[in-house]
Amino acid sequence: MVMEERSWISDLPGQVEMVEVSPRDGLQIIEKFVPTGKKVELINALIGAGIRRMEVTSFVHPKFVPQLKDATDVVKSIERRDCVCMAMVPNLKGAERAVEAGVDMLDIVVSASESHNRSNVRRSVDESLEGFVPIFALAEEADVQVRASLATAFGCPFEGDVPVSQVLRVCHRLQDLSVMEIALCDTTGMANPVQVSKVVKACKHEIPDIQWAAHFHNTRGAGSANLLAALTEGITVFDASIAGLGGCPFAPGATGNVPTEDMVHMLHEMGIETGIDLPALISTAQLAEEIIGETLPGQVMKAGRTCDLHPSPALAE
Amino acid sequence: MVMEERSWISDLPGQVEMVEVSPRDGLQIIEKFVPTGKKVELINALIGAGIRRMEVTSFVHPKFVPQLKDATDVVKSIERRDCVCMAMVPNLKGAERAVEAGVDMLDIVVSASESHNRSNVRRSVDESLEGFVPIFALAEEADVQVRASLATAFGCPFEGDVPVSQVLRVCHRLQDLSVMEIALCDTTGMANPVQVSKVVKACKHEIPDIQWAAHFHNTRGAGSANLLAALTEGITVFDASIAGLGGCPFAPGATGNVPTEDMVHMLHEMGIETGIDLPALISTAQLAEEIIGETLPGQVMKAGRTCDLHPSPALAE
Repeated sequence: MVMEERSWISDLPGQVEMVEVSPRDGLQIIEKFVPTGKKVELINALIGAGIRRMEVTSFVHPKFVPQLKDATDVVKSIERRDCVCMAMVPNLKGAERAVEAGVDMLDIVVSASESHNRSNVRRSVDESLEGFVPIFALAEEADVQVRASLATAFGCPFEGDVPVSQVLRVCHRLQDLSVMEIALCDTTGMANPVQVSKVVKACKHEIPDIQWAAHFHNTRGAGSANLLAALTEGITVFDASIAGLGGCPFAPGATGNVPTEDMVHMLHEMGIETGIDLPALISTAQLAEEIIGETLPGQVMKAGRTCDLHPSPALAE
Repeated sequence: MVMEERSWISDLPGQVEMVEVSPRDGLQIIEKFVPTGKKVELINALIGAGIRRMEVTSFVHPKFVPQLKDATDVVKSIERRDCVCMAMVPNLKGAERAVEAGVDMLDIVVSASESHNRSNVRRSVDESLEGFVPIFALAEEADVQVRASLATAFGCPFEGDVPVSQVLRVCHRLQDLSVMEIALCDTTGMANPVQVSKVVKACKHEIPDIQWAAHFHNTRGAGSANLLAALTEGITVFDASIAGLGGCPFAPGATGNVPTEDMVHMLHEMGIETGIDLPALISTAQLAEEIIGETLPGQVMKAGRTCDLHPSPALAE
């Protein structure tokens, strides 16, 4: 067999970083309050499996997200080892609480679309961007890094298409603020692989001197395809949620973030390293199901790894 | 923005054919017998939504797959319109029954791995290939086409890796028999996108004068990524199952074929035509859930299409 032709698989990265977001993006959408001790148990298991960056909570006002009212306790209780402890902060007040609790990295959030930003944080995109200035000042003083999650980067549930120019405008402003990383977020699972390729290519072309991450939801069954598309465009940092913990506020019954263990399994099978102990991660996905008390969307924890073979009934005869 | 660089999205096909396999690959694994009338209702709805080829049943011995014991009745009862009526046939006896019932296309099945073929049809790969000779003779006489489903083309649940050379050996033999199409089947969801790209590239390179199809299972959450990988290598025929109806014999709780409506949604969003009426297909996915009486894996039927927007709570204030 001769295969001289160059294709997308020739240029794949050898290693990617998985950013676990289940304790924030997953738990904030589960109706019931998961006790702090259970959150800590889940987070510690994830760190034990080799997760090296995790969004452990959000310092949002408890009135809006009571599920995460124990943000400070969670940060103070987990065994961090060498895992970067990241927390979402919606405003300066949240950032102050996060720094006080002792996080390593702040995750600021702004939407590419006006109506989603207003719905999410009750201010305009420009007001959000202006509000970030004191957060960056605080972060510099406290010596913590800041990454930005750019919501609705691939479509808005209220407005539909979000022009790439709008995504780039916000990214340029974030770059001016010296953000460490921008995560392009498919907040409600509206992305498709062609669009992902185009948006990522445009972002990397326009703003090459920044770390780009991607955050996909499997709301419409295209999560792994979108991740693959981003990977082929050179993205090497991916958000994901263990067992697919989470959901979609607009679609009861729909799934949320791509399941971490399924993406790690796929990446490992593709020959891409993550530094994660997959069997330990699969056990942690099962732990997540136990803690939530529901069947969660992750597949590999049900099917086993590709390398987990079965006895042949034919040979047994 | 300038984007001169050529990438995989430049070469995507403009149109693909979806082959619906739920009435066979989906229903054969559901434990209960779905009444013939309900099968016919589902098949007719799928044809109404624009499916133009469907594996409507299997003419396997009822002792092995009692769920499909009504194969002849199903074929005779459906309203075919312009849909190609395909049926799986495990042997000459099945092919004779299928032709007598009046199908348009036979789907013969052989595994790339010995142990899976023995487990599936109780004979060696070579015995299966020899057994196809009279089936092709019958098909020619009856003027029906023959396509082949090559099981375990991306891995075997008993043997693990299946060398590409082994896949090619069987494909060459099928080509010698004048098969119309070979579907590379990821029978138990073991494929990954890099492997899909390599196997498809090798097959198309070695045997260019045949129609290639691909059949993916979402058993480990990589179904849409594998379909994307096959698409980038020029595959334009994909098997899928409405609502993700089906499962995996080795993993209770794991999903089966990729959901037709989710893949059609993704393809349409990518600008690729399928000729299918997506809203009608989504309604059919909901019908499949009603008929089976269980929540099925398809996502778009729960989340709605990307273009189904929501009222903005911020603007409503």
